[in-house]
This record gives sequence, C-alpha cells and structure tokens, in this order.
Amino acid sequence: MMETWRKKAGVAWEKAKRSPALACRKMWRVGKDDPRRAIHAVKVGLALTLVSMLYLLEPLFEGIGQNAIWAVMTVVVVLEFTAGATLCKGLNRGLGTILAGSLAFLIEFIAEATGQVGRAIFIGCAVFIIGAAATYLRFLPYVKKNYDYGVVIFLLTFNLITVSSFRVSNVMRIAHERFVTIAIGCGICLFMSLLVFPIWSGQDLHNSTVNKLQGLANSIEAVTEAREESDDEEKSCDEDPIYKGYKAVLDSKSTDETLALYASWEPRHSRHCRYPWQQYVKVGAALRRFSYTVVALHGCLQTEIQAPKSCRALFKDPCVRLANEVSRVLIELATSIESRRHCSPELLSDHLHDALQDLNKAFKSQPRLFLGSNGSQASNMLAVAAAQARQQKERDEAGGGGVALSSAKTDTSALREWKRTRSKKESGERKVLRPQLSKIAMLTCSLEFCEALPFAAFASLLVETVARLDSVMEEVEELGRVACFKEYKREDDVVVTVKCETPRVNVCLHNLPSHGVD
Amino acid sequence: MMETWRKKAGVAWEKAKRSPALACRKMWRVGKDDPRRAIHAVKVGLALTLVSMLYLLEPLFEGIGQNAIWAVMTVVVVLEFTAGATLCKGLNRGLGTILAGSLAFLIEFIAEATGQVGRAIFIGCAVFIIGAAATYLRFLPYVKKNYDYGVVIFLLTFNLITVSSFRVSNVMRIAHERFVTIAIGCGICLFMSLLVFPIWSGQDLHNSTVNKLQGLANSIEAVTEAREESDDEEKSCDEDPIYKGYKAVLDSKSTDETLALYASWEPRHSRHCRYPWQQYVKVGAALRRFSYTVVALHGCLQTEIQAPKSCRALFKDPCVRLANEVSRVLIELATSIESRRHCSPELLSDHLHDALQDLNKAFKSQPRLFLGSNGSQASNMLAVAAAQARQQKERDEAGGGGVALSSAKTDTSALREWKRTRSKKESGERKVLRPQLSKIAMLTCSLEFCEALPFAAFASLLVETVARLDSVMEEVEELGRVACFKEYKREDDVVVTVKCETPRVNVCLHNLPSHGVD
Repeated sequence: MMETWRKKAGVAWEKAKRSPALACRKMWRVGKDDPRRAIHAVKVGLALTLVSMLYLLEPLFEGIGQNAIWAVMTVVVVLEFTAGATLCKGLNRGLGTILAGSLAFLIEFIAEATGQVGRAIFIGCAVFIIGAAATYLRFLPYVKKNYDYGVVIFLLTFNLITVSSFRVSNVMRIAHERFVTIAIGCGICLFMSLLVFPIWSGQDLHNSTVNKLQGLANSIEAVTEAREESDDEEKSCDEDPIYKGYKAVLDSKSTDETLALYASWEPRHSRHCRYPWQQYVKVGAALRRFSYTVVALHGCLQTEIQAPKSCRALFKDPCVRLANEVSRVLIELATSIESRRHCSPELLSDHLHDALQDLNKAFKSQPRLFLGSNGSQASNMLAVAAAQARQQKERDEAGGGGVALSSAKTDTSALREWKRTRSKKESGERKVLRPQLSKIAMLTCSLEFCEALPFAAFASLLVETVARLDSVMEEVEELGRVACFKEYKREDDVVVTVKCETPRVNVCLHNLPSHGVD
Repeated sequence: MMETWRKKAGVAWEKAKRSPALACRKMWRVGKDDPRRAIHAVKVGLALTLVSMLYLLEPLFEGIGQNAIWAVMTVVVVLEFTAGATLCKGLNRGLGTILAGSLAFLIEFIAEATGQVGRAIFIGCAVFIIGAAATYLRFLPYVKKNYDYGVVIFLLTFNLITVSSFRVSNVMRIAHERFVTIAIGCGICLFMSLLVFPIWSGQDLHNSTVNKLQGLANSIEAVTEAREESDDEEKSCDEDPIYKGYKAVLDSKSTDETLALYASWEPRHSRHCRYPWQQYVKVGAALRRFSYTVVALHGCLQTEIQAPKSCRALFKDPCVRLANEVSRVLIELATSIESRRHCSPELLSDHLHDALQDLNKAFKSQPRLFLGSNGSQASNMLAVAAAQARQQKERDEAGGGGVALSSAKTDTSALREWKRTRSKKESGERKVLRPQLSKIAMLTCSLEFCEALPFAAFASLLVETVARLDSVMEEVEELGRVACFKEYKREDDVVVTVKCETPRVNVCLHNLPSHGVD
C-alpha cells in the first residue's frame, strides 16, 4: 500500500518536474525560432523602466507629476514588434489625442454658457452622439484599415476630457499634461523601435516572399518525387513535403497585407529608391494563384488520376525535367529577390524552353492515339473541327506564332505583354529572351493535341503551372524595377549557376519564418 | 476673365457639394450592408452615456470619485461588435487586472522593507523583468491566440500600481478602486452586448458558412455557363461570377478562426446542445480544399486547355449536368445548415450518381480512341500494362468494388469511411445511401480510361470536384451530428425539392456578408 502510494507520488513528482521543463523548452523554441522576439522583449522591458524613471526620479517627477502614468500606459500599448507597427500606432495615438482634445474644448466652450444641470445634459448628449458616430465610422473599410486605433484613442481621450471637465475647473491643464505625457511615451517608443535594434516589417515582407518562393520550389520538386515513389504509401498531410511547401503560401493573404500596411508606415531604411510594399503584395497574390495550381497537381497525385506505371515511365523524364525547371526558376527568382538584383532572363527561359520541348517531343514520339483510326464518325468530326478551328486561329493571329488553338491564350498574351514591356526597357543583351519565350508559347500550344490521356490532367496542370509561373516572373520583374534592384551582371552568372546546382542548401539557410503579426 | 473664374468657382462648388454627398452615400452603404453596425454604434453611445453618469450624477460620483475615469476607459476599449469578442476582452481585462494586482502587492510587500533609494532600484528592476517576461510570453502561440489582450492589461495594471505605489501611500485603495471601476465598466459592456440586441459571433460563423457554400454553388454553375459562352470574351477578374463565388472562400481562414475564437467564448444562446464552433472551422477548411479545385477548373477555362467546339458540344450536356448536380448538392448543404437540419442523403446521392453515370456513358459512347489500333509498340505496351495493373488491383481489392485502377483512391477510402460511420449511426432509411455511394465510387474509377483527351483535364478536375465535395459532405454531416441538427423528415423533402428548383432566390436572400472581424 505504502509502496503504491510512494510510486504514484514518484510518478506525479516526475511529471511535475517534467512539466516546467516542457514549458521551458517551448519558451526556448519561441526565442530560437526568431531571436528578434527576445530582443523585442528586452526592448519593452527597457522602455518601461525608462518611462518609470519619470515617476521614480525626484526631479523628473516634479516636472510632470501624477500624469506620468499616461506615459507608462502609452509605452505598454504602443510599443509593437516592428517599427512600422509602432509608428502606425504611435501616430494614430497622437492624432487621436489632438483631435479629441480640440473637439472636447469646443464642447466645453459651448457647455460653459449653460447652467450645471443643462451642462450635464449637454455633455451626456455629446458623449452619446460622438460615441455612436465614431463607432460607426470605424466600420468604413478605409478607416478600419488605417486609423482604427486612432479612432479608439480619439473616443477615449474625448470622453476623458469631456467628462473630467465637469468636475475639474482647469481642463486645459488636464489636456496639456495628457498630451505631454503621451508625447513622451510615444517618443520613448519611437526611439526604442527605430533606433535600438530596429525590426522592419518591410524586411519581414521581403523575407517571407523569398521563403514562399522557396517553399513552392520545394513543393514542385516534391511533386515529381512523389510520382516516382510507390503509390501505396500514404503520408499524413502534415508530413507531406508538397503540402508543407504550399501551405504557407495559401494562407498568406492577411499576413502579407498586415505586413504591407505596417511597411507603408516605415521610413526608407536602406539606400533603395523607395519601399515597394504594394508590389510585394502583388507578388504574393501571383504566388497564391500559382499555388492553387500546385494544389490541383497535388490533388491529381492523391486521387491517382494517373497513368499505369509503364505510361508514367515513358513520360517520367520530361515531366520531372519540366517540374525541376519550374522549381529552379522559382529558386532563381527567390535568389534574385534575396540579393536584390534582377534575375537572369536567358537562364530562366533557356532551360524552361528545353524542358517544354522535351515534354512535347515525348508526346509527339507517341503515335497519333487521339485521332485514332477506328473510323467512328465522332472522332472524324473532332478531327475536322480541330482543323477548322486551327485554320481560323491562324488567320486571326497571322504571324503571331503559327500554331493555332493555343492551349494557353492568357499565357500567350501575358508573355507578349511581358516581352513588350521588357523590350521597351531592356538593352541588347536581354533581347535574346524574346524568340525563346515565343518558342515556349508555341510549344505550350502544341501540347494540346498530345495523346496520353491518363497523363493529360497531370501534364496540362504542369503546363498550366508554367503559365502561372509567367505571371509570377512578371510581378517579380516589376518588383525589381520599382525597387531599383541591381542590374543583372555576367559575373553574377557563375555564382547563380553554382547556387542552382544546390538549391536545398539555399532553402535551408534562409528558411526563417516571419513573425510580424502572428 | 471674370467669367472663367466664376466657372471655376462653380465647378469647385459643385465638387464640394458632391463630395459630402459621396461620403454620405458611402456611410449609408456601410449601414445598409449590415444594419447591425448601426445598432452597435448606438449601443456604444448608450454605454458611454451610462458610464458617464457615474461622473455626472452627484450621488454616484461621491461613491466612486475620480477613478470613474477607468470605467469610461474600459467601456471604450472592451465593448466590441459581437458578444463573444466583448466577453473575451472583458474576461481578459478582469483576469489581467486581478493577476497584476496580486503580483504588484507581492512586489510592494518586498520593497517596503528597503529604504527609499533601494526601493526605487527594486521597483525599476521588477518593472524591467516583468515587462520583458510578459512581452516574451505574448509570443507563445497559445497565449497569443487566447490571452494576448489579458497580458497587455496585466502589464499595464502592474506598471500603474507598482509605479504609483512609490509616491502614494495607500496602494490598496488605488488597486481596489481601479478594480471596482473596471468591474463596473465590464458590467455595462456585458449588459450591453449580451442583453441589448446581442450580436453573436457564432451566428456570423454559421451565416458565413452558408454563404460560402452558396458562393461555391454559384461558381460551379458559372463554370459550365462560361464553357457555353464564346471564348473570345474577356471578362475582368472582379466581374467574373466564377471568381466572385470562390474568392470569399479562398481567403476565409483568418476570418473563420477569429469568429470561431470569439464564438468559443460565447455562452449557449439557443436550444441546441452546444456550439460546435470547431466543426465550423473544419467545414471551412474542407470548403477551401474544394475551392482550390474550382480555381483549377477556372484556370482550365482561362488558359483554354479545352477541346474544339464540336468536342465540347458532344460532352457538354453530361458535364453541365454533373456541374449542376454538384452545385445543387452545395445548395442543399447550405439549406440544411441554414435550417439546422440534417440533409437528405438520397436526394444528394441519387442525382449526383445519375450525372456521373451520364458523363461516363458519354465517354463510353466514344470509340476506344486511347488504345488506338495504330499498332505501335508503345501503345500496345500501354494497353498491356493497364490490363496488368487492373488485374493486380482487382486482386488487392477483391470484392471492394470490382473496377480497378481507381481514379480516386482517396475518394474511395473516404467514401468507405463515411459509409461506415454513417451505417453505424443511421437507421434503416439512411442505408439506401450505401449502394448508391459505392456506385458513384465505381463510376469515378471507370472514368480513368475515357477517351476525349483535350477534355481530360476539365473532366478529371470535375470528377475531382465530386471527390472533394464528398469530404465537404462528410464535415457537414459531422456538423449536423455535433450540433444536434433536426432529423431530416420526409415532409421536408417537398420543400427542399422546391427550393432546389430555384436556388438563385435562396442565394440572393441570404447573401449577407459577415462582418464580425473586418
């Protein structure tokens, strides 16, 4: 009996001993994942101690008095993780306080004329009307997005001053002191967030864009690996490398927009011409559109609408090559954003073009299965219709590419648009890209009449991926232009080529999560 | 000259006259989109007036004094749009205040023993350590999600009490008064949000789920309509009815989770057994997975990897029918959630099954194009491999369905799982579903060897949609079970059938946006 009890106590003791250890490990991981969190915590502690000095040190206290409490409050509420968020909150707080103060004085000025009871009624009515109006204003999308906190502070300050003014004679002093202490608090916050180990939302946005590109590259690579593996293996969703790669991209909209909002408040913190936070959001949107196709590819693998193994073996190599090229382009884009330089256009298009051609060749090497010689009327009809449509399109786009029934109309027009904008701004060297891209467009077109049916869904989604990749490239290119990225130089080429050989290392090194708003 | 000036002034005056009108129209639309916003604004105004009474009315003021300001502040900060959000913030504020008060007393108790200078140093150190620790704690995902606001209030109160205690002798009174006034403020907030026209996050979550289902139904319907329309028309992304339908679903993750978080704080507000907010999140996730396939379908249309018109005409009817069935099932699911009753299983599977069979027949009616008789070795190889693979699978799944090379393995297993769980809990009537669902699974399988290639991507994605629809059905069924929905009754059938004939009306009536967290 005694023994059992002792055992139980021992187990409980072990558990109790382990539980803090577990909590500690969790705490440790939070800091290890992003050491800036620990820095931020120390900064907040420091700012609070600084602001407490106002109260603790005799000479400072005599200047400011009891209202030093407002400064403490401001520091607690305003000092946020990133500089942009702190600026946004601090300026909102300042603006709200000033506006509320002015309005409160106006109300006070009118109320002074009436008697004590009339004044109470007047103040009550003002509080009701301003309260309801300000709350209603918060529902306006523009106000909600940019000035939500400012309106709250406006309401708070207005009520404090208006209501206080009823009992206190010297409202001017209250307002003045409140304003001074809030200014001191905001000053300390801005000092801490802008000058002491600043953490920039813009940098987070930049890093998260690079990480998303790399995650998608991993996904695409994992897709081809999954096709090679045996089908019987069922992986849990969370371990699946494909899922892991695109998961972060799918749900990135709100994070991106918050980071961009905060980044829009940040001053220029580098030599670059201006901070193109809006363009990062556009790149994010293009990446999300890209990732939906990756999800569909993944779905294709999971539901196994796929060819028998022999068929897969036949088309395996070109598919794997195309996927690898897509993945490599993504990594090149990631590298170019990361090192803030334009990406190499020949590198991008040359290999992608070859891979598409390979896939095309593989399909062409098969006999004309689709327009089979079974002689049925329906299939002949199809052939005739196809030929007609082809001729018509050829007439429409005379000289535009030659091959009709483009399997990627949007793609082609996007490519053309891109080529036009590029050719406008690029010099001789870049123009090599032009014929290559149009070759890709032609090949994308000719894929339509390929013959291996169970493969069609997978292959067409893969080609669709290339089309979407194009809009991603376009947005990244635009980002490079807006953000004044360095020109791509020949001597970079060597480094890039080496990097492309070992993309995994690159991915691991920079796979830092962004934690601005989580 | 004078004339020009007068004209300019006239234009400016017109503009100035129109600009407030525009602002007014925007303001009006905010309220018209969701009248609860206006109600909320009035509620906030009322609560602020009530809390101001503490200050304005002589007898109340004498009881509470200057600290009534804290009550005003609490009302401004805590009173949120939905009851759940208010409860979450109010309880966080209360908890944070109590904890901070206790800790501050402990610190005060220790500090009292030392001298004035030692005390200042001790308080400074305590402020630094507690500030850094609390800020670090906020990065823990669990704390961040549930108690972020509580930690901020803890830090605020702790600093206020600790720092004040240095100059004021009676800290106990400060803490007590602060606590009482915060309690009064929270009381008014809870009264306003729970008893006066309460707005429930749970209800918002429920409505947004219904709306998302209906939006997806519209998308699917629009996909088939788009296929029928001429290809040359280019619609802008925002006007596209397909895009409009799924857009809201794609980016719903953070909204869903916030609403679910607030709903988890809400008390039971209806007769239903308990509020399954977690299950709504799961339904949302299933809907997002479903919508990715819809995006891929949309991409299929946009990039025009599609058959020539004659081929499309051949398969148009079964495809349209299948899509309409999917859309109808989505609307039936929406209706069932909306009226909080189980959905009718026969209705769901019967028509879907017929539509799948139609598509299958249409494909089968075509000659065996894929295994064409061109006599090339490769295609023979494919045929042999396919036959082998089929036999092997048949051996593996002996009696499981008969047809091998399932085009939807996940689908099949999901269906089987669902059937098992259903048959466990359902009585005689529901079991009709079982053979029908397995028929669908069989048909989904046999689609793999269909022959119309340019159509394959579209058709396979459409079948994939059916597979994903299944997981949506599963989650909705689970929702019905957890939320104790009404049993489906025969007499409901008539109503439902009528509703299904005119889904559009249903959609328009209930297409209210949810604004809990925007």
